[in-house]
Amino acid sequence: MPQRLRDAIRDVPDFPKPGILFKDITPVLADPVLLQLSIDKMTESASDFAIDKVVGIDARGFLFGPSVALAKNAGFVPVRKQGKLPWKTNSISYALEYGENILEIHQDAVSPGDRVMVIDDLLATGGTASATVKLLKELGAEVSCVIFLVELDFLDGRKNIDCDNIHSILNY
Amino acid sequence: MPQRLRDAIRDVPDFPKPGILFKDITPVLADPVLLQLSIDKMTESASDFAIDKVVGIDARGFLFGPSVALAKNAGFVPVRKQGKLPWKTNSISYALEYGENILEIHQDAVSPGDRVMVIDDLLATGGTASATVKLLKELGAEVSCVIFLVELDFLDGRKNIDCDNIHSILNY
Repeated sequence: MPQRLRDAIRDVPDFPKPGILFKDITPVLADPVLLQLSIDKMTESASDFAIDKVVGIDARGFLFGPSVALAKNAGFVPVRKQGKLPWKTNSISYALEYGENILEIHQDAVSPGDRVMVIDDLLATGGTASATVKLLKELGAEVSCVIFLVELDFLDGRKNIDCDNIHSILNY
Repeated sequence: MPQRLRDAIRDVPDFPKPGILFKDITPVLADPVLLQLSIDKMTESASDFAIDKVVGIDARGFLFGPSVALAKNAGFVPVRKQGKLPWKTNSISYALEYGENILEIHQDAVSPGDRVMVIDDLLATGGTASATVKLLKELGAEVSCVIFLVELDFLDGRKNIDCDNIHSILNY
């Protein structure tokens, strides 16, 4: 069955810029069987852990996070780009290839000791996931695992993420 | 039970700018019982319709759309801000209070005759939902219903949306 997921992912050359081969997950989302399968596989990846909060990263982490949260009987927490969360936030800045990016989390989104699972669609260089883990640890959370639908192995992004349990459903 | 949803929504004054009272849904997301309830209520709102695709609007529509899609045994389609979708897109521009915004959809996201349900978290002036409905109709889809978690009645945004079935779980 994971082969069906792999077959559905569409390679789009030169997006978002020349030389990048983008992994388009929209055909997975569009098929209810594959959408359910991807949620099931991400949930199974965390089967060793009791989870209080599933954290999804803006915006494609939002596509999987709430469904996995419901399957784990956990709440969902969004980590968002700067200026999108309305209440009191903690923020973190991290370097991109050109410039920097800022992520924010609500200060009451997790409590000290909460066991959290981080979800995003794709692991590339790991900058966004690494920053998210730091935000969560600053709030006292225990980051049990970090789960991706797709991982680009050649970028070795997982070495940048401070968590012992990193799992991807599809590796390229 | 909807009263529990209503009680959980947090009013944040002066966000994103002075004079606006923002409805913060993150406490609903953070509670697994309320998250499930919101998904259930949105799904029930479309109980009269067989649905082929659930369309969620970037970014907070992504929080509910895939879960509702799974409950309806439908696929999920993202409508995104300009430049985010990697493959061939159709786009629409619509006016904001200051300036304009552009939304995009993949050209193969829906097929002529598909019965679709549009989901977003909040109905304010209806500009985004109205533009989304236009994008879908241009692709030949039948927009069966448009569902929001929260509607701000005093803005009367539903009058701008070309669909006979518009439903919100919580009205203010």
